[in-house]
Parts: sequence; C-alpha cells; structure tokens
Amino acid sequence: VTTLLVVGTGLIGSSFALAARRSGCFDRILGVDSAADALATAQSLDIIDAGLTDLASAVAQADAVFVAVPPGVTATVLAEVFACMSAHSQVVFDGASVKCAVIDDLRERLAGLPKNYVPAHPMAGSERHGPAAASAELFAGCQVFLTPEPETAAEAVRRVAGYWRKIGAYVHEGDARRHDEMVAVTSHLPHLLAYAYMNLIAERVGGAPRGIPAEAPLDRYAGSGFRDFARIAGSEAELWRQIIEANRDQVSVQLGALDAVLVRWRVLLDQGRFDELQAAFEDARRVYLGIVAPGRSGAAARGGGTGA
Amino acid sequence: VTTLLVVGTGLIGSSFALAARRSGCFDRILGVDSAADALATAQSLDIIDAGLTDLASAVAQADAVFVAVPPGVTATVLAEVFACMSAHSQVVFDGASVKCAVIDDLRERLAGLPKNYVPAHPMAGSERHGPAAASAELFAGCQVFLTPEPETAAEAVRRVAGYWRKIGAYVHEGDARRHDEMVAVTSHLPHLLAYAYMNLIAERVGGAPRGIPAEAPLDRYAGSGFRDFARIAGSEAELWRQIIEANRDQVSVQLGALDAVLVRWRVLLDQGRFDELQAAFEDARRVYLGIVAPGRSGAAARGGGTGA
Repeated sequence: VTTLLVVGTGLIGSSFALAARRSGCFDRILGVDSAADALATAQSLDIIDAGLTDLASAVAQADAVFVAVPPGVTATVLAEVFACMSAHSQVVFDGASVKCAVIDDLRERLAGLPKNYVPAHPMAGSERHGPAAASAELFAGCQVFLTPEPETAAEAVRRVAGYWRKIGAYVHEGDARRHDEMVAVTSHLPHLLAYAYMNLIAERVGGAPRGIPAEAPLDRYAGSGFRDFARIAGSEAELWRQIIEANRDQVSVQLGALDAVLVRWRVLLDQGRFDELQAAFEDARRVYLGIVAPGRSGAAARGGGTGA
Repeated sequence: VTTLLVVGTGLIGSSFALAARRSGCFDRILGVDSAADALATAQSLDIIDAGLTDLASAVAQADAVFVAVPPGVTATVLAEVFACMSAHSQVVFDGASVKCAVIDDLRERLAGLPKNYVPAHPMAGSERHGPAAASAELFAGCQVFLTPEPETAAEAVRRVAGYWRKIGAYVHEGDARRHDEMVAVTSHLPHLLAYAYMNLIAERVGGAPRGIPAEAPLDRYAGSGFRDFARIAGSEAELWRQIIEANRDQVSVQLGALDAVLVRWRVLLDQGRFDELQAAFEDARRVYLGIVAPGRSGAAARGGGTGA
C-alpha cells in the first residue's frame, strides 16, 4: 500500500486527501491535527482512514507527507516531521503561500534543507474552513507552484508534481524568491490595499449623507467597481497577517513602490497636470488589457463605465 | 404632446430616451449631438424621433432637457441650453458623476443658477459606448442622486425625480458637496488605486519569473482577488481623467488620507508590529462585513481564502 499523511486536516489538507484518494495515488490516508475536533471530523467524513495523535508513528507509516498548516507555523511543523523521519524514500511538501520564509526557517532549524522536501504553494482556497468544507474539486484547474532549492532532489520534485497533476492542478516550477515577489504584487498587496481602503471608509463614510436617509448609505453609493475592490477586505485577518508577516520584506518593497506612484499622482492632481495623469491611466489600461486579460478585452473592460 | 430633448445621444442619453419613451413620460423625443454619426445612429434605431443640429430650435420644442455629455463639458453645454431657453415651465437636468464642479461652473457662467436646473447623477454605465449600445433597462434598479441647490425649484426636482422613478431607478436627494465626497471615496479613489496598481504591475511584473515559461505569467499568479482588484483599471482613461479632474479637491483629500494609512502600515510592517496590523485588518473586515455587506457575510467573505 501507498500511504499519504496529511498534517493539518483543515480545508486544504482535507481537500487534497479527498482528491488524492480519488486519483488513485494513495491507498491509505492518515491524518494528524493538533485540533482534535478537526481530526475527528475528517475521520467521521472518511476523508482520512485514521487520525493519529502521535506524529512520529504517523510519519513512520507514510510514503508522502503533506504539511497543510497556517503559514506562520509551517516551518515549525515541517521541522517536527523531519525530526522523526529516517527513510529517504519519503517525500514531504507543504502548502504555504509564502516560500522563502518557510525555506529559510527550515534550513536554519535543520542546519540544511532535506533533499526530500519540496516547497509547494497551491493557489486555491475558499471562504469556508475545516474538513467539513473540503472538496475533491478544490484543486482542479488551480495553479500549483513548486520552488525547489539547490538541495532538493529532482526525483522528489517529480513525485510531488505528479500528485498535483493527477488531481487536476497545473504545476509550475520556479524560484522561491521570484515566487514571493510575484505573490507580493499579485495577491498580498491587493489585500493590504483593500484592508487600508476599508479603514479609510470607516473613517470617512461612517455616517449618512445629509438629506439622505441613514440606512446603508454606502451600499447606495457603491457601484460595482467599489464592491469588487472592497470584496477581499472580507478575508480572514489572522491568516493574512501570517501571510504578510512571512513575506514582509517583499510586501514592504511593493507597498513602498505603490506609495511612490500615489504620491507622484497626488502632485499631478494638486498641480492640475491632468494630461500626465490621463497618460498614466492609459498606460495602466493598456497593461491591464494586454497582460492581465490578453484576448479578453471585452470582459476586461466590462467594469469600464459602471459605477461612474 | 410632451417632448423630451436629449443633448448627447451616447449610451446614457440614448438609454434614457428608450426608457422614457417606454415609460410613457414623453410622446416625442428629440436629439442633439455634436457627433453627426451618433445622432444618425440614434435616429436610425428609433431611439429619437428626430435629430436636430440647431440647439435653440430643439430647446424651444422641449418640455424637459437631459444633458448627457461627458463631465468635462457638461457645464458648457448646460450654459448653451439655458442661453436659448425662455419658458420657465421647462426643466433641465444633467447626468454628470461630479456635481459641485458643474454647479459652480454653471452658476458662474450664468451669474446665478436657474431654478429649473436639477443636478442629477444616475449611477449606471457599461463598458460599451454610443447609441447602438443603449438599453431601456440600463437604469432599472440603479441609484440616481439629485443634488438641488437653494435656488432650485421644488417643483422641478419633483418632476425630474418622477421621470427617473418611472423608468425604475431609485431616486435620492442630497447635498452636492456630500455627494462628491461620497463618490470620491466609493468610486473615484478605487479607480485611481486600480490604475496606480496596474502601473506598478507594469514596472514590477513585466517579465516572466525565472524558471517559469514566459507566456502570461501574471495570469498564472493571479488569484480571483487580483482579478477583481484589477478589473476597473480597464476603465476608459479619458472619461476618468474628466471625472477626477472635476472632483480633484475631494479626490486629493481622500487620496491623501489613504496614503496616510499606507505610510502608517508600512511602518508597522517594517518594525514588525504585526499585532497592530492584524487589529487594523480586523477593523477593516468588520467594516466591510457590517457596513458594505450587511446580512451578506457569506457572500462578503467569499473571496476570503481565494488566491492566497
């Protein structure tokens, strides 16, 4: 039998377990979770075959170990897994959305990076949590980034890539630092901006406008652009603190770069240099239509006039 | 017969014409547009009964005049309409998304605000332009703000509100300055941020990550949060320059306030004060769930984990 151990039976770990079982990659799935209720739920839903409390015993039985815990504790848990691992034929991979912090932390803890550890980041999620929200379809069509280090064995990467492909994900290999820079720009900065924007809303638009009834004034003023923009401010604060903390250097750089653009634009605004502002808007629009939504200019521009 | 004159037969003017005809408010609809092709198209599609080139003659026949031209020229066109108007029984309203600049400009041009002018802002739009894109349904369920000044006759407000209600819009009356502040926060600032963010993207993420194939790297890294955030950067640059130019004071104030939040947060980030950052995220999330999406916490949080 081929055995998978999922450490962390939350949404990500449990969804991977469901998909991996269906894909036929593994005959037997074990689970470990510090939260007894999550483990019991995963077992009662047949997501895992057995829930274990002893990590060493679980690791000893596994061919592959998926560490699916919050980013802030991923390196700690990985180190615990490697502390009780002896067989070189086992592979270990994680799911944290920031890679360098996990890799650097683990390398320091273990005085070197194990060759059978494959850093991974599946870009998927849901607003729901825990094993009860798990779905075998969560990773179908999603992007998974593997960021092997010089120490990482090619064979380990090949095996882990195979698991993800088998469950329907698109697998990409790349450099961890470049990965973290990309997600700082494409994911972490937008979340930070949405949170900051919503803090501004709280300051500015707390009350109702004069002469307009008090109920839900914001909803009334908010066009579809606003709702899109604000939506990610509904994201879980604790998780995003951990992500941004883990990627703090990159996020700080990107935030500084964005702030420089805003400061420049505020000068243009205050000095009435609207031709330059419009040229910058046109550049932005071109980038959006060309890079982000190539060949989808209709869909891309859909929000164009709405809410104006 | 009751006659409507639409000055500007683009998407907004033509959609209002279609809806107003269907609602039975008007028996006859005239159109004026400085673009001969827009006027000809509106006439060939039976959106208007007649397209006129002489504004004075058109105004003389109208019971109501809707000025639906870009925000940057709204006051100019309104002044032209009033220059050839004599009857006090006629009402005139516009559709510009910024109110104070139009009101102040018009008051200066006419040395006083006509009592039959009703400043209006229908919050609706589309990515498509021109009379061919017009729809009788564009304003169904949309929010329309009327911002009468002390000079404005209550009877004129009543009539214009009636037209918009009859075509299915929700009409709200309020203070022009407060309106402009609200839309600066809820609409103009998000557009500015999306454009600024996309400028950053152009700087930072132009190339492909090392080790990852070159084609569309951004699309691959972009979660749903990113796509939402970026979408409004596809908006028409010339229109948004005009809107932001017209509301420059309010937009500058709000941009400055947001920038202050970002500068504060960057300090927290660089000093490792993540508990404070998390508390700010939690405040933001509460504001989002409570004010923006009351009773819709499920939908509101939908983006929560996606793209992490």
